[in-house]
Amino acid sequence: MHQLKKENTCKSINYGPWYSRRYVRHIIFGWDTMGGKLYDIVLLLCIISSIIAVAVDSIKNLSTKTHEILYWIEWAFTILFTIEYIVRIWCLEKKRSYILSFYGIVDLISFLPTYLSIFTGSTHFLFAFRFIRMFRVFRIFGLSNLRTEGSYLWKSILTSLPKIGVFMMTVLMIVTILGSIMYIIEGEINPTFSSIPKAIYWATITLTTVGYGDITPITALGQMISTFVMLLGYSIIAVPTGIISGEIAKAKSRSKKDNAVSQSHRFCTNCGNPIHSEDSFCGKCGKAV
Amino acid sequence: MHQLKKENTCKSINYGPWYSRRYVRHIIFGWDTMGGKLYDIVLLLCIISSIIAVAVDSIKNLSTKTHEILYWIEWAFTILFTIEYIVRIWCLEKKRSYILSFYGIVDLISFLPTYLSIFTGSTHFLFAFRFIRMFRVFRIFGLSNLRTEGSYLWKSILTSLPKIGVFMMTVLMIVTILGSIMYIIEGEINPTFSSIPKAIYWATITLTTVGYGDITPITALGQMISTFVMLLGYSIIAVPTGIISGEIAKAKSRSKKDNAVSQSHRFCTNCGNPIHSEDSFCGKCGKAV
Amino acid sequence: MHQLKKENTCKSINYGPWYSRRYVRHIIFGWDTMGGKLYDIVLLLCIISSIIAVAVDSIKNLSTKTHEILYWIEWAFTILFTIEYIVRIWCLEKKRSYILSFYGIVDLISFLPTYLSIFTGSTHFLFAFRFIRMFRVFRIFGLSNLRTEGSYLWKSILTSLPKIGVFMMTVLMIVTILGSIMYIIEGEINPTFSSIPKAIYWATITLTTVGYGDITPITALGQMISTFVMLLGYSIIAVPTGIISGEIAKAKSRSKKDNAVSQSHRFCTNCGNPIHSEDSFCGKCGKAV
Amino acid sequence: MHQLKKENTCKSINYGPWYSRRYVRHIIFGWDTMGGKLYDIVLLLCIISSIIAVAVDSIKNLSTKTHEILYWIEWAFTILFTIEYIVRIWCLEKKRSYILSFYGIVDLISFLPTYLSIFTGSTHFLFAFRFIRMFRVFRIFGLSNLRTEGSYLWKSILTSLPKIGVFMMTVLMIVTILGSIMYIIEGEINPTFSSIPKAIYWATITLTTVGYGDITPITALGQMISTFVMLLGYSIIAVPTGIISGEIAKAKSRSKKDNAVSQSHRFCTNCGNPIHSEDSFCGKCGKAV
Repeated sequence: MHQLKKENTCKSINYGPWYSRRYVRHIIFGWDTMGGKLYDIVLLLCIISSIIAVAVDSIKNLSTKTHEILYWIEWAFTILFTIEYIVRIWCLEKKRSYILSFYGIVDLISFLPTYLSIFTGSTHFLFAFRFIRMFRVFRIFGLSNLRTEGSYLWKSILTSLPKIGVFMMTVLMIVTILGSIMYIIEGEINPTFSSIPKAIYWATITLTTVGYGDITPITALGQMISTFVMLLGYSIIAVPTGIISGEIAKAKSRSKKDNAVSQSHRFCTNCGNPIHSEDSFCGKCGKAV
Repeated sequence: MHQLKKENTCKSINYGPWYSRRYVRHIIFGWDTMGGKLYDIVLLLCIISSIIAVAVDSIKNLSTKTHEILYWIEWAFTILFTIEYIVRIWCLEKKRSYILSFYGIVDLISFLPTYLSIFTGSTHFLFAFRFIRMFRVFRIFGLSNLRTEGSYLWKSILTSLPKIGVFMMTVLMIVTILGSIMYIIEGEINPTFSSIPKAIYWATITLTTVGYGDITPITALGQMISTFVMLLGYSIIAVPTGIISGEIAKAKSRSKKDNAVSQSHRFCTNCGNPIHSEDSFCGKCGKAV
Repeated sequence: MHQLKKENTCKSINYGPWYSRRYVRHIIFGWDTMGGKLYDIVLLLCIISSIIAVAVDSIKNLSTKTHEILYWIEWAFTILFTIEYIVRIWCLEKKRSYILSFYGIVDLISFLPTYLSIFTGSTHFLFAFRFIRMFRVFRIFGLSNLRTEGSYLWKSILTSLPKIGVFMMTVLMIVTILGSIMYIIEGEINPTFSSIPKAIYWATITLTTVGYGDITPITALGQMISTFVMLLGYSIIAVPTGIISGEIAKAKSRSKKDNAVSQSHRFCTNCGNPIHSEDSFCGKCGKAV
Repeated sequence: MHQLKKENTCKSINYGPWYSRRYVRHIIFGWDTMGGKLYDIVLLLCIISSIIAVAVDSIKNLSTKTHEILYWIEWAFTILFTIEYIVRIWCLEKKRSYILSFYGIVDLISFLPTYLSIFTGSTHFLFAFRFIRMFRVFRIFGLSNLRTEGSYLWKSILTSLPKIGVFMMTVLMIVTILGSIMYIIEGEINPTFSSIPKAIYWATITLTTVGYGDITPITALGQMISTFVMLLGYSIIAVPTGIISGEIAKAKSRSKKDNAVSQSHRFCTNCGNPIHSEDSFCGKCGKAV
């Protein structure tokens, strides 16, 4: 079966002329032909270039000339992405399901904001969603062989999400309590601890070991509590790691068990029940095998 | 047995009228009926709102008007929580065990400080304990299916606590030694290393990779030792992770062993071979079991 | 055998009068009697108090009065520790092996510096070694039941030390290379990157995610490389964790294998060879079992 | 076979006089003789000394005298490394494969930049590549017994690289999106968020928990998003750890399976039962094997 599939992709099927829907669809959505790969690489470079253009454009102390060039580059990419979006819709048969799909909306968002910016103010921040398009293009890197492993890593991360959610809730609770305690201690004399939300912000900075240093305790008691908060943060960082490691181990043992089942390739000729490898009688109907 | 339980919760038991103790108790303490779920969600929103109100109230540069509104909101929630507390006591049969229980005390602390603030000064910091009430309310998120896994994660964390305690003691010892060495080196010329406690505080900031930057070495030797402390901290952060991962693995293998034992408790009366749980014939000698 | 030991510690052996060597030795070095536990707790408090006294004494803006009190407290503890050291030597039979042992030297260092400070300048930093004495006193917390698990954790950490050493060498190499690259880029225009050692110091701060912020890049290229260094540090922090986790898993599987061997409790009556559980003949001599 | 190898290295083979190619090659490239070990240690010290000399030379506020001395030290090491490179080529038979090998190029780079600095400007940053030479010299530390374990650790890291690459791409995407959102929020009023690239730089600093503090949010909304970014970074740091731990576990179970297979390659000729490697009789039927 695997061979059949391989053959399928290797032999040059007659897709019709280059302007036929079928051929275009294969280039844009497929990644098993030379043309499809090239298309993906060009699209990837366009996405990255357009993101860099918008990012650089936001730097204020550039010359007016540079800003103008970047402005036109941005419009060029916008028009390119618009045309590509229209072609994508044109070549598909199930147009509606694409438009309403996740990637369909992402594709739309990748160029719409530039048009909207004519009427409204800056909606540039939406340009960052172009990055999401890149995920579709990852396939050209031969990352497809990561699929089985990657998917089970991905599954492990997904199944550990609720637990990590509970962990984050707990951390939020801890920082609220610690922040309000620090507000009582530092609030009076330390201008950086001006309110409880600021103190909670400080507690988060400290517990997560980020440590900006824009808000720091100055009292002896405050610094002692800080020390405790740091050590706490340094210790409980192990919890999400433990959760994910646990999930990965579980996913692994589960797939091993599935393998074990699939490996018992003997079946009872009488009732079709799988035969345990070391058995000489069917466990279900008692027939000798 | 599972089915029986399910049925039990699904069929509408006649709890009597809405003002009966039994019905109220089911709404407040239960979470298997529509009413119980709704009650939990409303309570959750009240807790979060009241915490936000107190936190925002601590911001100084708000208008007097806003402070006044927040003051009354705080009182509204306090009275609400008081009533809820009284109703909780009223509807329970074992009143005393609730009052003295962990959650009973947490519920009391959630409104008492506001009353005390009339007589004494600010006891606002206790408001943060309201957050603990939220844990009881987590059940509405269907986190109950996390129970078996969650409890074994929780158990792993609990059993690793003494080891993490020893780890934290060791870290405290390391930071004391490193802090006092740095005090000798930097103390003379660096005003930020003004005392040994400050130097210990610095060592904690550095070892836990928090890195505020309010206290930093300026001598070459001090910066070399800093580099060492950072690399040390970067390496030993693996220890708590290793502890928790180890505990999780242990908890898992223990539960697996328990499963394995409980799954093969039938043996063939003819040849003594263990019978696979779903089999009705011995796989070795073919005898019906 | 376990029972014998238990009995031994429970029944009140006649150690002779309180001033006898044997009795004193049991109190000071033992921790299985009431007196031994009490002694350990008092010693623990003395150690912590003396450390706090020295640490607080280093704060400059205290009154002269306070400094004087702390000076005398320090001397009181020093004399106390001296007496304890002499008594320890007196009550032991193998005096020499204690004096030259690790804890013997630690005990000596805990009071010697104060005497030396009369003749020489400050040798206060050695006070921190008092902390090491605390490890001996940990036994009172009933941490002895952690021994089997703790020791295997400890063994895992010890066996992973060479690997972590190689990891730290690699990190040192990376920060040297990154630091010298950043010196080329930032050195000219950024006064905080004044030399290669400073640039290496910055690279360590960034890679270990400490992030003081006393040395930060200001050029666009420098900030891009910084971003890369941060992401690198954020990723390779997983390596020491992986090493320790791997060692723990190995230590576990090794102890499991040891268990497996000890569990095959059937032995050949002919040659004494252990019999594999599912075998009916001795694998060594061929005798039916 | 192991014994034969041991013997081989132990007995003093007659390599000819000290100036013979064979003898010199054994000293320089081998590490199993006393001379070879000594050579490696001296080379290691030379490499470290030369790196320190260049690093110290970059400090500006040293006396002209010191700079001059360091200049000549640097030239001395350069000439030494040049001679060593020539001798290495001379004593080898496959000269070309060494020159084009990884270590051959590293050896060349370790002295070439100093010669180039006569004609061109500073190419000092290349000195850091000398560090790579050290890896070859690690063998003298008896790290060869780490080889089997080390190589499987190394393999785990290598096989997890593509996954960590995907992880870093995802992180890059997250910081771009978060950075551009923060630019919209903070850009107007906060001079430190002057452009999107700066905001992305800030997001990386925050997500990786580095936290320089040179760019910090000042608006309430910005600080709330910061809190979220910190918690996110604090949680997803578990992902690379999970990936590497998973790979290590997999490498371990693979090597275990390989062991299991290779250990039971004998089967009873009578009943086909696998024979335990150290047995001389079949455990099932008792036949001598």
